[in-house]
Amino acid sequence: MTEKSFNFDLSASEGTARAGVFHTPHGLIQTPVFAPVGTQATVKSLTPAQLADTGASLVLSNTYHLYLRPGADLVSEMGGLHNFMRWPKPILTDSGGFQVFSLSDTRKVDEDGVTFKSHIDGSIHRFTPESSIQIQEQLGADIIMAFDECATPRDLAYNQRAIVRTHKWLERSITAKTRSDQALFGIVQGGVFPDLRRESAEFVSALGLPGTAIGGLSVGESKAEMHAMLEVLHPLLPMDKPRYLMGVGSPEDLINGIMRGVDIFDCVLPTRLARHQAAFTPNGRINLMNAGYARDPNAIDATCHCYTCQNFTRAYIRHLVVAKEMLAATLISIHNVAFLINLVNQARQAILERRFSEFSTSFLNTYKPVYKQENI
Amino acid sequence: MTEKSFNFDLSASEGTARAGVFHTPHGLIQTPVFAPVGTQATVKSLTPAQLADTGASLVLSNTYHLYLRPGADLVSEMGGLHNFMRWPKPILTDSGGFQVFSLSDTRKVDEDGVTFKSHIDGSIHRFTPESSIQIQEQLGADIIMAFDECATPRDLAYNQRAIVRTHKWLERSITAKTRSDQALFGIVQGGVFPDLRRESAEFVSALGLPGTAIGGLSVGESKAEMHAMLEVLHPLLPMDKPRYLMGVGSPEDLINGIMRGVDIFDCVLPTRLARHQAAFTPNGRINLMNAGYARDPNAIDATCHCYTCQNFTRAYIRHLVVAKEMLAATLISIHNVAFLINLVNQARQAILERRFSEFSTSFLNTYKPVYKQENI
Repeated sequence: MTEKSFNFDLSASEGTARAGVFHTPHGLIQTPVFAPVGTQATVKSLTPAQLADTGASLVLSNTYHLYLRPGADLVSEMGGLHNFMRWPKPILTDSGGFQVFSLSDTRKVDEDGVTFKSHIDGSIHRFTPESSIQIQEQLGADIIMAFDECATPRDLAYNQRAIVRTHKWLERSITAKTRSDQALFGIVQGGVFPDLRRESAEFVSALGLPGTAIGGLSVGESKAEMHAMLEVLHPLLPMDKPRYLMGVGSPEDLINGIMRGVDIFDCVLPTRLARHQAAFTPNGRINLMNAGYARDPNAIDATCHCYTCQNFTRAYIRHLVVAKEMLAATLISIHNVAFLINLVNQARQAILERRFSEFSTSFLNTYKPVYKQENI
Repeated sequence: MTEKSFNFDLSASEGTARAGVFHTPHGLIQTPVFAPVGTQATVKSLTPAQLADTGASLVLSNTYHLYLRPGADLVSEMGGLHNFMRWPKPILTDSGGFQVFSLSDTRKVDEDGVTFKSHIDGSIHRFTPESSIQIQEQLGADIIMAFDECATPRDLAYNQRAIVRTHKWLERSITAKTRSDQALFGIVQGGVFPDLRRESAEFVSALGLPGTAIGGLSVGESKAEMHAMLEVLHPLLPMDKPRYLMGVGSPEDLINGIMRGVDIFDCVLPTRLARHQAAFTPNGRINLMNAGYARDPNAIDATCHCYTCQNFTRAYIRHLVVAKEMLAATLISIHNVAFLINLVNQARQAILERRFSEFSTSFLNTYKPVYKQENI
């Protein structure tokens, strides 16, 4: 653990957009940063070497999944998550809360914690703030999350109850924490309700934690609601701590988040899309199953410097897709992850050079997002 | 195309085992060599960069598959197979004969060629010696194969008919060939019958081709029969040309083949086994699904220098297997391909140092092969 660990140095800002450096025991994270997701201690279809080549620094892994399989005790016995999955750079684990509320077959929430059924084998388990922290200490990520209750975003009464509980659980998470080489982030909840978001932001900010997570967005509310909540939160969160918008994003969400002061993002989107043959380009997504690419001698994105775009034609990748070859998912994943990381890096550079406003306007005018519900 | 293309320089021999160098337009091949198989223009689950890291030089690809999908004209339009799949080193294509006889739904053989149904969509196609060569010229591999008829190994009457036809088709293949930057190998057939093998070897050898393939082995006959056929062929094949035993091998088959004068091998085994969680070790195969590896902190093979063994524990790879993560197949494929290439490289070095006899005895005493029929 370096002396500067968990310091956040703000290098530049433009409007509410920020560029900074967050120091962790496994190296620094230049922000804004996009973290690819390695749910089961692997970013799907990529080796750590391929992942490093995309420019990734921070990787997220899921406490719920690793607790169920292979077990946090096993990961700990193998030297912790960095050593187990061979990712020597920073790692962030979530608390398991979101997955318990979204993935497990049934659940029962009480003041003390949540009892749930495993989505793998139906076995019964229980998470409390204390057990979530204990598991995350066994996993050993650089950044860990307090255990929270994720309410549906537009249910006022549920969100009122949930933030009370989330705040109590945050205090218990802080008390439970024993390792000094992990940064615990509190999570701001409150759905789409400005008053609840303010109340939650003020409570979480007062605790002096090394970073703040924003939960309960990108879970069914509109883009306008997400943006409004980020704008409500901006002046209330500590300026000198990184802000992490959980589970976001798409290219347009990253730019809109950075514009509203977000420093850290994570999302399964680039690798999940890749397994469904969809690839990012500066103009929007393309689907490489499309017959129009059968004889296309161009790279997915001619402006991209990733291994995939430097080597392979759309025609070759479409052949792999049609022939159901595993390499298709790998090559598209490499590109999609590299695309998001490069996008965020470009945004960072633009903030440093005080031209983020032009950069973001230009990008959002060019990139055609997919808003309709897709079966991905 | 270099001046020395298709020269075969014999560097050393020990008994009937040989070490040499085969020159091709895409670089030299140190023999004995094991060629991983990229059936559909991809060695399954591996990028060309990962494949190069295993030490691979020669890669095989299948004419039958590429003809059906994406089509040889498309591959040609994309600059040929080397450029399409981004493998800058030597490539070998087979003639499609074996796949027509083993994969297609129905077939009708006549003197002129074979009519068959695609295993993909049931569409009707026809291969002749001329069309096979034309397709292989469009694909553009360094080493191409004459179109042959593959008989079941123990059917004497069928093998008698098949070698007559195979020899006629070889002459037509030679006549059809137009490119000077591809080496055409003739294929010796004859099942498990020494007299037929002798007749075929004498016919093929007399044509002065740059290399000789040995077909119709490793297709249901016993190991003893395979060894006996190699021993029959050894004195009859040109000493100054490489000998290619098609579709072999397992570790023990490679060593037994090298011992009997074989220079080139290919097989899907390392990548196919990997997709079924089986990995080579110096003592035999292990299956990483086995619960005994759940907390095993060792590499698959502690003596191996591949990316997988230098980085990952059996415990991690078993976790990936159990969690059905694609990375499991990739990591085990890297190891299995590297294992066979390293084994063949060690055999080559032993021949150069005149200690192949001890090396092969030691390996065959240590490695416990799997002889029972497996569902791989």
